Order: sequence, then C-alpha cells, then structure tokens
Amino acid sequence: MTYSDIKVIGFDADDTLWVNETFFRDAEQKFAQLLSPYETFNKIDQELFKKEMDNLSLYGYGIKGFVLSMIESAIEISNGKISNSKLKEVINIGKDMLNKPVELLDDVENVLTDLSKKYRLILCTKGDLLDQERKLEKSNLSKYFHHVEVMSDKKKEDYIKILSHLDIEPENFLMIGNSLKSDILPLIEIGAKAIHIPFHTTWQHESIDDDTLDENQFLTLDRTLKLLDHL
Amino acid sequence: MTYSDIKVIGFDADDTLWVNETFFRDAEQKFAQLLSPYETFNKIDQELFKKEMDNLSLYGYGIKGFVLSMIESAIEISNGKISNSKLKEVINIGKDMLNKPVELLDDVENVLTDLSKKYRLILCTKGDLLDQERKLEKSNLSKYFHHVEVMSDKKKEDYIKILSHLDIEPENFLMIGNSLKSDILPLIEIGAKAIHIPFHTTWQHESIDDDTLDENQFLTLDRTLKLLDHL
Repeated sequence: MTYSDIKVIGFDADDTLWVNETFFRDAEQKFAQLLSPYETFNKIDQELFKKEMDNLSLYGYGIKGFVLSMIESAIEISNGKISNSKLKEVINIGKDMLNKPVELLDDVENVLTDLSKKYRLILCTKGDLLDQERKLEKSNLSKYFHHVEVMSDKKKEDYIKILSHLDIEPENFLMIGNSLKSDILPLIEIGAKAIHIPFHTTWQHESIDDDTLDENQFLTLDRTLKLLDHL
Repeated sequence: MTYSDIKVIGFDADDTLWVNETFFRDAEQKFAQLLSPYETFNKIDQELFKKEMDNLSLYGYGIKGFVLSMIESAIEISNGKISNSKLKEVINIGKDMLNKPVELLDDVENVLTDLSKKYRLILCTKGDLLDQERKLEKSNLSKYFHHVEVMSDKKKEDYIKILSHLDIEPENFLMIGNSLKSDILPLIEIGAKAIHIPFHTTWQHESIDDDTLDENQFLTLDRTLKLLDHL
C-alpha cells in the first residue's frame, strides 16, 4: 500500500481519537436497569435499537436523538406505565453523556503532532454539531486540524462533497477511522484510501457483513502509533 | 450605505428564507394545551422558556433539544404526574416539526436567482445539522449557495471563523437575516456589513434591548425583494 499521493488525511473522531461507544453501552445498561421491571435485558436492548433505527432518518446521529429514542422506547416497553421519575433519570443519562470529559485513546496526541507537520489534517465526524465541537475543544486537539467537517452521514456522497470542497482528487485523500461501514468502505468505493483502526466496541448499526470486504484494499492497524510506520 | 466591496453574502435560513419561528410558537401552544390541567398558559410558557435557557449550553439550538426541554418541563410542571400518553404527544409534536414541509418566504427564489449571479452566496444557519440540511434540500434552494455553514452559535467569534475560512476581510462580507442579535450585531462589531429583514415573530432569546442598536450602521428592509434595489 503506497500513500505517496496523499495530501489530506481525514480522521474520524468518536472511537478513533477518543472513547465514545463505551459511553453509549454504559447508557444502554443504565436504561435496561430502569426498565428491568417490565422486560428482560435482551428484549429492552433489542427494542431500543429498533427504535433508534426507526428514528435515525429523522433524528440523525448523536446523543439528543438517542435520548429521545430511549424515552419513546421506555413508554412503549412499559406499556405506558413508566414513572415520571424514571423518565427524568433517562434525561439525566443523556445530560451525563453530554457532560463527560474527553478520554483520548493511546498515542493519539503523538501521532497527530507528527502527521500534522506532513499533511493537512481534517476531522470528519458525525453526530451533534455542538457536542462534537465541545469534545474537540475539551480534547485540546483542534490545533492539529485545518478544520472540522461535522457530517450528517458518512456515505459515499458525503465524502464526495468533502473532496470537492477540498478541491482534491480521491487518490489524494486518506481516511482513518474505526468503523468499516462509515470510515473505510465508502472511501474505497470512491477510489480514496483508508486505514482501519478497530475499537474494541462497535455499535450494531456500524457493523457489516464480512463478505462486503476486500481486505487487500485497505490497511488494518491494531495501534494508532503504527500509523507513523506508514505515513 | 455602500456595498461595493462585498464579495460574499451570507444568508440566514430560518425566518429569512423560510418559515420557522411560527412552527415553534405552534408547538408551544400545543404543549401548553397538554399541560393546561396543571398551570396557566402564561406560567407554562415561562417555565418552558426557562428550561430551554438552562439547557441551551448543553443541547444547543434545534428541535431535538427543544423536545427534550419540553419533556423535562412537563415532568416538573405536573409535579411528576404527567401521563405517558401526553409525553408521547410531546415527542410527536417534535416529530411533526421535523417532518414539516418547507414554506419559502416571499420573493426569496427571485432574489437568490439574481444575487447568485453577482456574488458568492453562503447559507449561515444554526440548529440541528441534519434538520437544516433536510430543509435546504426540501427548499430546492441549494443550487444558489456555494456552501452551507451550520453554526453551533452565531456570535462574533463564530463569524470571524467563517471569514478566515472564506479567506476574506470583514468589509467583503454582508450578512442578511431576521435576527438583530444573531445576524446583525455581531457583524457590525467585527466591521462586516449586515441587512436586517425582520420576521413578524421573534423568539424571546433572540430579542435585544433597543439601546444596543445604532441604526445608522445597517439597513432594515421590510421586503426581501428590496434587496435588489441595493445589491
């Protein structure tokens, strides 16, 4: 794999630079605990995920939509019997998530310091605009990035828009991220480059069938630091 | 007022290109109706606004944060007695808002057609990213805009960031919008130009004291079409 044509590197943020999915898993556990008088943990999980998918085109990604889906789900799972105080707790689960400090993943700061000297770096993330801006500020990483693209989705067309914005060809762009579905596959499809750095936890919605993958088309690294061996 | 140095024109979206505030006022009325067994309309209005302000730094602008504030407010106003079915209705008020068709204001399409031939136009809006993108798509107006800046807030610093992004000086930028607080004052402060086109309804949070205004520093127009007399 050669990266000699690369001019701009896009970094995913959640679970690539800092911890995110873990907080959602924790929130789901607290939610299941609150709803446990009404259903099994497994059923609660399934119903919440289904509700999130139903609402995704309307709410998009991010914590606020997630909380609205939890509330709706709680009302349905409990057959309209959940107490106001438990619903207040659901709202507070969301507020706690929004207030969480940012936990950088290993080696991120070193790698960005080094790469920002050689390439133009941009941050490509989806979720709530305000929440992502807040995390970037808390992370102290903004100085490494030329700018931030908060994307409503990470499909082929969304990346094509960014390339035209950047005024570069696909072969000049490398995306680095933890999600095969959002950070890797769409890039391969448009002829750009991608490096996959898996995170230990993946949201069900981001998982893909193995047979859509051609592993010769992108590199997978088990540590962020190893980026410096290739770039 | 001379606009000969203008290279880029920023348009606000909500209540400048299309109706928005009216839908929030309608939603507040429905909300007050649901809560009417517990409090007077006036008190419900006040409590909801207070809750929105308390949550603004955490949720930012947009419909999802508004719905979360309505739910929290409903629980508090009813002293924890509001029924699940009424809370479900609150959630549906929000979904209806997100699904609303876009109603363009008078003359918008004509004015954009004309101005886009002479200037680079950009859309400067705050709110939910996905919601604003969806409205732009429904409006069929995206062809007139070079790009969209969805901003987490519209303060002086936010506009300075946009100017540096655009690589232009303040005197080359004109902002057009309905909110004195968000679309006019910050621009005057940084030495850019601004034209105010009031909308009949203004959110309390966007209103300002008259004495912060120097009306010699910007133009106020009562019709969008009149922009063409000046630009």
